[in-house]
Amino acid sequence: MKIQEIHLASRPEGTPTTENFSLIDRERPKLEDGKVLVKNLWMSVDPYMRGRMTNTKSYIAPFEVGKVMEGGAIGEVIESRNAQFPVGMKVSTMQGWRSHFASDGNDLTPIPPTPLPLQSFLGIMGMPGMTAWSGLFYIADLQPTDTVFVSAASGAVGSVACQIAKIHGCTVIGSVGSDDKADLLKKMGIDAVINYKTAGNLSKALATVSPQGIDVYFDNVGGDHLEAALNNMNDFGRITACGMISNYNDSEPQPGPNNLLKIIAQKLTMQGFIVTDHWDHYPEFIQQMGQWISEGKIKWEETVYDGLDKAPDAFLGLFEGKNTGKMLVKL
Amino acid sequence: MKIQEIHLASRPEGTPTTENFSLIDRERPKLEDGKVLVKNLWMSVDPYMRGRMTNTKSYIAPFEVGKVMEGGAIGEVIESRNAQFPVGMKVSTMQGWRSHFASDGNDLTPIPPTPLPLQSFLGIMGMPGMTAWSGLFYIADLQPTDTVFVSAASGAVGSVACQIAKIHGCTVIGSVGSDDKADLLKKMGIDAVINYKTAGNLSKALATVSPQGIDVYFDNVGGDHLEAALNNMNDFGRITACGMISNYNDSEPQPGPNNLLKIIAQKLTMQGFIVTDHWDHYPEFIQQMGQWISEGKIKWEETVYDGLDKAPDAFLGLFEGKNTGKMLVKL
Repeated sequence: MKIQEIHLASRPEGTPTTENFSLIDRERPKLEDGKVLVKNLWMSVDPYMRGRMTNTKSYIAPFEVGKVMEGGAIGEVIESRNAQFPVGMKVSTMQGWRSHFASDGNDLTPIPPTPLPLQSFLGIMGMPGMTAWSGLFYIADLQPTDTVFVSAASGAVGSVACQIAKIHGCTVIGSVGSDDKADLLKKMGIDAVINYKTAGNLSKALATVSPQGIDVYFDNVGGDHLEAALNNMNDFGRITACGMISNYNDSEPQPGPNNLLKIIAQKLTMQGFIVTDHWDHYPEFIQQMGQWISEGKIKWEETVYDGLDKAPDAFLGLFEGKNTGKMLVKL
Repeated sequence: MKIQEIHLASRPEGTPTTENFSLIDRERPKLEDGKVLVKNLWMSVDPYMRGRMTNTKSYIAPFEVGKVMEGGAIGEVIESRNAQFPVGMKVSTMQGWRSHFASDGNDLTPIPPTPLPLQSFLGIMGMPGMTAWSGLFYIADLQPTDTVFVSAASGAVGSVACQIAKIHGCTVIGSVGSDDKADLLKKMGIDAVINYKTAGNLSKALATVSPQGIDVYFDNVGGDHLEAALNNMNDFGRITACGMISNYNDSEPQPGPNNLLKIIAQKLTMQGFIVTDHWDHYPEFIQQMGQWISEGKIKWEETVYDGLDKAPDAFLGLFEGKNTGKMLVKL
């Protein structure tokens, strides 16, 4: 049995490269009484992990150089000295970026029997889906009459946010970085999609597809997207600040939008959130999302890289828009 | 009887000058039945008026070039052909920037009998006081345990916000542009005051006086003050976006703070507001503020320019920090 881990080799300055990661062979851990050995089947790479590669205080501790990275993963118990976690049990954990690990069970959440593919618990049924849902309902206070703008709209969070808003009765506009992604969203029923790479002035493009203005902006991008949204927000609009991927790789802090005065003039509310603060609503989310999926009301995409050694490439691909829907690594 | 008005002579590019205003002599209006003649005693100049000098869509219509300007004023009925508004009645109006005006009464709000000086209804008991109060309680949801940072803290709104927060039990930090203003605030009981002109790095200055972090930032300034506040906000902090005077005279839009990612990482809420949306709470405010004043719990300052012809100077002085407390013109 080959046991491997990906370690943070060095902290990136600006955009990370594969040099910042190292693939390490490990000894097979000895299983004491009460412990189990889990083999990871799927792992998640997410934009927020970029923040953890930097040694700054944030809502989550930074990764340590020379140590294994962390992240969402789905695994299977392959050896067990703990009756609560029998061999064959599928579990959700934060022990990604490694092939196997030993656990006393405290960090394992059993996945209930489900007709859904296991990896959906890293995407539509997991953190990204929960992020979209809680951001819309608990932060933006989504109303059926809202016109909603979602950036990075074909991503793991954005594509779910777009579809939930449509189910709720909203008019939905997405921005994406390719015509293929735009076509995909239109097939999902999204009302208008902007390819920001070819649209020219983003504020004007948004005004053209949404002359009625924007009531809710679900921000995954920041920067020019936030500026364009601000220029088109209606009075009392809400901005759900979920991510600012355009800034994650800045080696120096970059200036913000030049039109924050709109926050006052249009009496906007901009609220940042981290999904982990809303985890007490996860059972409600799982039930609602499971129902939407079973009714065929919501669809999802995956982009899969094969093998733990490809995890850095998968992660780096997030910042180049190489994913459609959830970016995953199959182990 | 000399009747005069101040007109908008031209729209400013960048910082306004006295050239943008003209003093015009007018004929005495004829009083039809049902009308009254009001002589203005006091008028207000406020930072928000800068926005109305520019011809852009906003929450309030722009001033028109070649026409009289508008703003808060306190006047006295000196002739009456309307029994509801007898001679001698004191009234609050939006008919500032002029010595006299005729009215059918629809734009007049009688000032009730009060031991307070009339001009306080343009300051502590009027729009600026109401702005501070509603911003703290209806936008920031002020809690006694909060550490509150107020910028432009010796201004008409800021000085009231500081004192209300102190009355509510908060720890309060203000920023001002002179040592005299800092001394004044300290005498009012404000816990710490930063002179931003001499403090050097504002983020560090704020961290020094408030190592416990900031829970509520009452923003009157924007720009570097907003950036410094963001660097010091505690988790779930609230930013009340009341004004951004540092940007009002920009001839070109200026970049915003470089650290908006803090809104996500610290899960902040930034909410813009315009006091007029909260006017239904004005009776409650008046009662509360009247009580605080009668108990000696709140104090206020005025800076008075004498004569309608000095109104442009008074207005321009707002952007140079020439006022302590409410900037007023005595007619």
